Amino acid sequence: MVRVRVEVRLKKGVTDPEGDNVHKALALLGFKGLRAVHTSKLFLIELTTKDPKTAQREAEEMCRRLLANPVIHDYSISVEK
Amino acid sequence: MVRVRVEVRLKKGVTDPEGDNVHKALALLGFKGLRAVHTSKLFLIELTTKDPKTAQREAEEMCRRLLANPVIHDYSISVEK
Repeated sequence: MVRVRVEVRLKKGVTDPEGDNVHKALALLGFKGLRAVHTSKLFLIELTTKDPKTAQREAEEMCRRLLANPVIHDYSISVEK
Repeated sequence: MVRVRVEVRLKKGVTDPEGDNVHKALALLGFKGLRAVHTSKLFLIELTTKDPKTAQREAEEMCRRLLANPVIHDYSISVEK
């Protein structure tokens, strides 16, 4: 079994209202010295294949077809054992 | 400046409807050999402090007070340069 971590984040320049709201909420709670908060989504996918290359290829296709929107998202894939 | 990555994920045993739906959608798209899909949330927090220990301590307090719900969430914090 191979575990794949797929991180889907907003491209630079795309507004991140969730991150902005977390930033404001943390400031209201009294946290000082915050510069920025960004949020992103993580998918942990377990595949039955044992080949890391196959897993990487499959995960890339999953991102292209479902997990990420190429207009606003970047993604990165890392294959764990 | 220190960047902190906070990963907030559901505890084991807590149902993850988003992960389940992604799992189903990927299966419907024809992906084979999927065992499980889990989702989690990632916060990238930029702090003006330069001390990694302070950053770690602040991030833990942020998780306790805002980012994570201790009933259903586990979290992990990693401090980047």
